[in-house]
Amino acid sequence: MSSRSHPAVHPLDVEIPQLTEPAAAAGAENDGRPDDRVRMKDIQGMPGTPTNLALRLFQFAFAAVSVSVMAATSDFPSVTAFRYLVAALSLQCLWSLSLAIVDIYALLVKRSLRNPRIVAVFTIGDGITSTLTFAAACASAGITVLIGNDFNNCSQNHCTRFETSTAMAFVSWFAVSPSFFLNFWYLASG
Amino acid sequence: MSSRSHPAVHPLDVEIPQLTEPAAAAGAENDGRPDDRVRMKDIQGMPGTPTNLALRLFQFAFAAVSVSVMAATSDFPSVTAFRYLVAALSLQCLWSLSLAIVDIYALLVKRSLRNPRIVAVFTIGDGITSTLTFAAACASAGITVLIGNDFNNCSQNHCTRFETSTAMAFVSWFAVSPSFFLNFWYLASG
Repeated sequence: MSSRSHPAVHPLDVEIPQLTEPAAAAGAENDGRPDDRVRMKDIQGMPGTPTNLALRLFQFAFAAVSVSVMAATSDFPSVTAFRYLVAALSLQCLWSLSLAIVDIYALLVKRSLRNPRIVAVFTIGDGITSTLTFAAACASAGITVLIGNDFNNCSQNHCTRFETSTAMAFVSWFAVSPSFFLNFWYLASG
Repeated sequence: MSSRSHPAVHPLDVEIPQLTEPAAAAGAENDGRPDDRVRMKDIQGMPGTPTNLALRLFQFAFAAVSVSVMAATSDFPSVTAFRYLVAALSLQCLWSLSLAIVDIYALLVKRSLRNPRIVAVFTIGDGITSTLTFAAACASAGITVLIGNDFNNCSQNHCTRFETSTAMAFVSWFAVSPSFFLNFWYLASG
């Protein structure tokens, strides 16, 4: 109230109460509880939101690029870790694409996917695929560094392609982590 | 009550109800709510419990064995991933040992560590160290498999020691994961 007595000094303080007053009045009727609850459950990034769809497409795109770049090199089958990277990131591709399709369906028919059982399935799947993707990225990174820095043997190997593929795998893992932690947080708090 | 009619068969069952009855009676006065809440917060494995102390010592022991076995090989500094494994698992050792000491202190003076801020610090620390440990284990595994299976060059390298060190690093990571997820769950549900 004291700030209202100086409208010329703090002009914003006059506007904000006018905008928030109807909401505050509506919330006051039932102690503001339902308003808070709806806002907490509608976190962007949860299954069935446009942010989550964007994350899924991001994961899918980077995993697909990683697999393509690695599979395009002629000598990747000679290294176990590179074969594993192709397998793990193909799984990541399939998983992210499936969930992107589920998200598109949920957005089109305006269905909520925030059911604890569905979210538990998504969390377990995200946990498994992100662990496999991270393990593949780390193993490939170890071998890429071994070839490039320790053996100094980049002239005979496709170092740039291996590095690109590994980097894309790490980016894909970075994109899976928010999905996993948001879903896990929702499960724990719900 | 039926167990009380055979004191000779189950002598322990006679003691336990006598110890828990006052607590149960106290809980019944207010619909058992506080009792449930206390039981939920007293999950074994949370900071300041004997299970958590055991987990910390387990993490510390396996990380220490992994570092020792790797550092005992003469040629580990020639491979970047093995140097990284020594660094990451030394950090894991220090972190687990520090938290084990904190747990011992909390158990001795019977202080609860279940403060959201303390648990948040533990969760972030566990998240960082477990990610580094897992990355180091995966990179070493990739290179150990490369040397052993792809190059068939175990006669000139300490394959058994590299494998042992990698396996111990994975076990240490397995022991960090429950601490991390329990703390994260506590933070989200608290």
